[in-house]
Amino acid sequence: MKGFGSDNHSGVHPLLLQSILDCNSFHEPSYGTDSYSAKTDVLFKNLFHQDTEVHYVYNGTAANVLSLRCAMKRHETVLCSDISHLHLDECGSPEFFAGKIQTLPTLNGKIIISEIENYLIRKGDQHYSQPRIISITQPTEVGTCYSIEEIKKISIIAQNHKMFLHIDGARLANSLFFLKTTFKKMLIETGVDIISMGGTKNGFAFGEAVIILNKTLQKDFKFIRKQSAQLPSKTRFIANQFWAYLNNDTYLKIAGHSVQMAELLYLKLSDISKKHPELIITQKQQSNAVFVIIPKEIIKTIRSHFFFYVWNEKNYECRLMTSWDTTAKEIDDFSGLMLDQLSL
Amino acid sequence: MKGFGSDNHSGVHPLLLQSILDCNSFHEPSYGTDSYSAKTDVLFKNLFHQDTEVHYVYNGTAANVLSLRCAMKRHETVLCSDISHLHLDECGSPEFFAGKIQTLPTLNGKIIISEIENYLIRKGDQHYSQPRIISITQPTEVGTCYSIEEIKKISIIAQNHKMFLHIDGARLANSLFFLKTTFKKMLIETGVDIISMGGTKNGFAFGEAVIILNKTLQKDFKFIRKQSAQLPSKTRFIANQFWAYLNNDTYLKIAGHSVQMAELLYLKLSDISKKHPELIITQKQQSNAVFVIIPKEIIKTIRSHFFFYVWNEKNYECRLMTSWDTTAKEIDDFSGLMLDQLSL
Amino acid sequence: MKGFGSDNHSGVHPLLLQSILDCNSFHEPSYGTDSYSAKTDVLFKNLFHQDTEVHYVYNGTAANVLSLRCAMKRHETVLCSDISHLHLDECGSPEFFAGKIQTLPTLNGKIIISEIENYLIRKGDQHYSQPRIISITQPTEVGTCYSIEEIKKISIIAQNHKMFLHIDGARLANSLFFLKTTFKKMLIETGVDIISMGGTKNGFAFGEAVIILNKTLQKDFKFIRKQSAQLPSKTRFIANQFWAYLNNDTYLKIAGHSVQMAELLYLKLSDISKKHPELIITQKQQSNAVFVIIPKEIIKTIRSHFFFYVWNEKNYECRLMTSWDTTAKEIDDFSGLMLDQLSL
Amino acid sequence: MKGFGSDNHSGVHPLLLQSILDCNSFHEPSYGTDSYSAKTDVLFKNLFHQDTEVHYVYNGTAANVLSLRCAMKRHETVLCSDISHLHLDECGSPEFFAGKIQTLPTLNGKIIISEIENYLIRKGDQHYSQPRIISITQPTEVGTCYSIEEIKKISIIAQNHKMFLHIDGARLANSLFFLKTTFKKMLIETGVDIISMGGTKNGFAFGEAVIILNKTLQKDFKFIRKQSAQLPSKTRFIANQFWAYLNNDTYLKIAGHSVQMAELLYLKLSDISKKHPELIITQKQQSNAVFVIIPKEIIKTIRSHFFFYVWNEKNYECRLMTSWDTTAKEIDDFSGLMLDQLSL
Repeated sequence: MKGFGSDNHSGVHPLLLQSILDCNSFHEPSYGTDSYSAKTDVLFKNLFHQDTEVHYVYNGTAANVLSLRCAMKRHETVLCSDISHLHLDECGSPEFFAGKIQTLPTLNGKIIISEIENYLIRKGDQHYSQPRIISITQPTEVGTCYSIEEIKKISIIAQNHKMFLHIDGARLANSLFFLKTTFKKMLIETGVDIISMGGTKNGFAFGEAVIILNKTLQKDFKFIRKQSAQLPSKTRFIANQFWAYLNNDTYLKIAGHSVQMAELLYLKLSDISKKHPELIITQKQQSNAVFVIIPKEIIKTIRSHFFFYVWNEKNYECRLMTSWDTTAKEIDDFSGLMLDQLSL
Repeated sequence: MKGFGSDNHSGVHPLLLQSILDCNSFHEPSYGTDSYSAKTDVLFKNLFHQDTEVHYVYNGTAANVLSLRCAMKRHETVLCSDISHLHLDECGSPEFFAGKIQTLPTLNGKIIISEIENYLIRKGDQHYSQPRIISITQPTEVGTCYSIEEIKKISIIAQNHKMFLHIDGARLANSLFFLKTTFKKMLIETGVDIISMGGTKNGFAFGEAVIILNKTLQKDFKFIRKQSAQLPSKTRFIANQFWAYLNNDTYLKIAGHSVQMAELLYLKLSDISKKHPELIITQKQQSNAVFVIIPKEIIKTIRSHFFFYVWNEKNYECRLMTSWDTTAKEIDDFSGLMLDQLSL
Repeated sequence: MKGFGSDNHSGVHPLLLQSILDCNSFHEPSYGTDSYSAKTDVLFKNLFHQDTEVHYVYNGTAANVLSLRCAMKRHETVLCSDISHLHLDECGSPEFFAGKIQTLPTLNGKIIISEIENYLIRKGDQHYSQPRIISITQPTEVGTCYSIEEIKKISIIAQNHKMFLHIDGARLANSLFFLKTTFKKMLIETGVDIISMGGTKNGFAFGEAVIILNKTLQKDFKFIRKQSAQLPSKTRFIANQFWAYLNNDTYLKIAGHSVQMAELLYLKLSDISKKHPELIITQKQQSNAVFVIIPKEIIKTIRSHFFFYVWNEKNYECRLMTSWDTTAKEIDDFSGLMLDQLSL
Repeated sequence: MKGFGSDNHSGVHPLLLQSILDCNSFHEPSYGTDSYSAKTDVLFKNLFHQDTEVHYVYNGTAANVLSLRCAMKRHETVLCSDISHLHLDECGSPEFFAGKIQTLPTLNGKIIISEIENYLIRKGDQHYSQPRIISITQPTEVGTCYSIEEIKKISIIAQNHKMFLHIDGARLANSLFFLKTTFKKMLIETGVDIISMGGTKNGFAFGEAVIILNKTLQKDFKFIRKQSAQLPSKTRFIANQFWAYLNNDTYLKIAGHSVQMAELLYLKLSDISKKHPELIITQKQQSNAVFVIIPKEIIKTIRSHFFFYVWNEKNYECRLMTSWDTTAKEIDDFSGLMLDQLSL
């Protein structure tokens, strides 16, 4: 059954599957010294900057916590949003691998920028775990996107306080498509230090990248990755997926399809909600997610045809995620079913 | 270039690659709740015992350290061989995830069983990190195999001291083939508690399994795995590889080919060493490895045709690993080259 | 200069100093096997219950984090108040030693009990660090006390969810005095599992106790303490201070004096605030603390005579702590100075 | 009962006890900001060098593991002797706080210097935890002392490989007395980076110092100490003991007495062993320890009068420790009893 559960319910995108087949023949050195990794490195350097260092890891949790571990010490703190995946959905992995979490208040899923400095006033106080990283999710957990100006503002605060800026980009390319911008404009020109760049939710079988832009953070990563059990053995199978993904704007095509399907879904549901105000859209659609309050009594029936998650058990706000393989027909069918159910 | 560097220099075995393609269509729930995982669970229960719990992780380091983390507390110790991968080749990962390592002396790569209890005399002493796990590698790092009797003896010591027995089985099936035995006889009847079972070195793209046989260890693993950044998102791609591997004795065929190629290589090199005693075979061939001292002056030339690792930089003992894709012709060519070089 | 900075600015109470001198002659076994520890154990068992296990550690941070480490696993969470010392003033020590922190909203420094279960709804979800401990501070960081009924209610929630209840009791005896109750009524009959009991802020030179009431938590503590670098070598010097403290109701006398001095201070300042409403008392006085907003312009002068901390830099709420050596004359002098300054 | 169990079985030396009484009156700021700490800092700077930074902690385990934590990262290794306290008697504390341990072979309790570089050949290999610290115990666990030349040699190896040299100096002053040297000559001129300097075994009630000589290691220690639960609250009681200890050569007098008593004991037992060759002295006497094999059948009787530890349960090698309060008469009585028992 297809549905709107998560973009990681999809299988592998045909071009990415082909990239796995393409690199399978013969022997390759393991642990990152293969020719496919070397070739893909060049792509990353071109899309980001020439001193970019990229390291592959297996999943999104790993990309996040190794980014943190790389940029903070155990007695330091990462500031992140109070609805962040880091805080709520990693089973304490940041605290296990890296250090303390301090949550910041949010609006529309984004950290309230004017609040950040309130959490920095105890710099130097030995009783207080020292803030070292600001981590933002782009797009956020509720599908909204920080603008380039917002990222720039946060980056300046980080620099002013000798902190690092990390992007949790499990669906990074989706924000790129929405903002009609480039990696360089969104991430290099704003001064981001380190990035978790997702593959799995953009059609990979597996594989994520930690992109280290700040050279001062590049020194120890290979040891940190190995000790953290994230050094891929047959690295070529991740590297060549990234090669296929970054080449020829494929990442924008994959991301773009998801986001456009979400836009279509958003428009259909907005239309329906005009007649049926009990259907309430709760967040702006700025990536591949639509958040909507659905009347409790029809959720079960709709979910039996199209799986999705109830995000908030109290008010029945639901999260609908589109993916690279979502079709316009599925959106039509889903919207039709919604309308039927609401009209009963 | 193909060679004898490592069985993880090979690509994906055709049957396993097919298993990836087979499960790719449509949506599947993520994080282990997919239908392929459910189906494969049954295979594991049949091959081990009905209370077996299996959890997939990404690589061998993870299978090892999460097995340890699952069975010991931070103030406890794992006993392992002084040449073990755990101690020498995991960049301190066991200490990071689990607890202290105490190494035991070895003979032919295997822990000297009569020495084990010398390391247990400080049980109860609060100043001494308490031994909780004995971990053995099967086959060992030098390619030898513990006999079933030896495993049984170690298991009894573990039980007598309320400890657990862990198997680091990155190439587990290879030992099974060599010993002409079954999972049940080698692992269940001997009383093993928890196993790292490798896939990558037997032809997988990626993926290993932690097999928890002792029910007292099964409670918290899912949280440990998630926090340790090892919960695979699109789990089906590991699960279905294991399904193809365990079904229809495929694991024995893949392992058997590797071991038979090593046997052939061993025989060829033994023959050569009769004429050329400077070629010294240093370990018994009991899995897919042959260890041999090669005269220093010919190593470079041979390595330029067939890559392999120098295991001991002091005496030029080299490690030759065969794999699922090693051919008899490659063995012939390698042996021929060796003979030529020795005869110069 | 004496003042109201903290009860750890005081030296050692005469009776406790005498207890150090009393146990100094001759040799004693180290690491807790001395006769003074044995003798003091009996006192603890009588004041708590006969299965009580007590372990000495050096400071309050240690008592707290080792209590947590003893009762939770790395993938679990401790729930504590959003103004708790655990979260704000231990430099990330709970996360380093034990596991994740989740903060709960507070009223008057106390966790809002009706909110607790909102944080327990993801029990069993592998993506969510599992709540295992509720930790409350008694008296709280703002000097208020949980009533026995409140402790009982929290304890029942903990039991219903298979969690443990921990008391951070750096000033535990002060709450006992205020509530006119006993250790047994406040801690045993309510069902508390484990306690950090402070000595330092009640007149010790150094030394705190971890009191393990729940027998299921007693097994590994000695190893945890040693590994955590908290096994006191010459244990007698802590044990005998606790002996002197618990004997003959000394703890109630020391705590009682502090609390009565705070009551006197509260009354004096309340009187003053009737005439000078810009002096605003912000918390109930229920232990040895008085919280009061002091006009910014007079703070510096008063602090130059009696040191104290500004608790909230935004509204100039100040924390005044009394101690075992605070005198009524000092309260008079301080109040007089305050009145003078306000009248300028 | 007095005996030769350990120098931490003694109470507090009169001068050090007096230093506790001397600083007890009135209030002092806590957490290291007191006047006694400031005063003692000057003494340390004079005895070591002017950029010395000293931090007090509670016990020897803490001094060691916080020194390590300060100078290494989690993916790095400390090299220490295979009989070191770090490896055998800290319940895994170095691995918990700091990183991996790799043991080195020893002769007479001292690391075999020519072996060190064998453990450094995998520098840069991502699979191998990277050596960062060499830690030596001075005097060693068997009472021998590294000469100044030996320390210098080890220091040069450390520098050549960008590693740090740590001294575990639980009884540091004893080696100073034995070598007839100064802190400056033994530790500054040789290039030591960081030191655990013991107080407890030289007559303190409690308290040790971490002395950071290498400025690059001084940055984060205060946060590390707090997070590690080792920030002393009423710091003055440790600081003033160190003041009394370092002032007026008191440390040399306390250490000297212990060492001279051990020398006397060594001479007496050597004399006896001439007649009774079954009494075998096994180590050189170079500090306050004498190691001697005592016939099994008389151990129990002698231990009932003078407690000591059997060091090696296999050959009945015993460890006899003298202390600041050992008297010549006790040595006489012990030797007399030994002679009587051997003559039975």
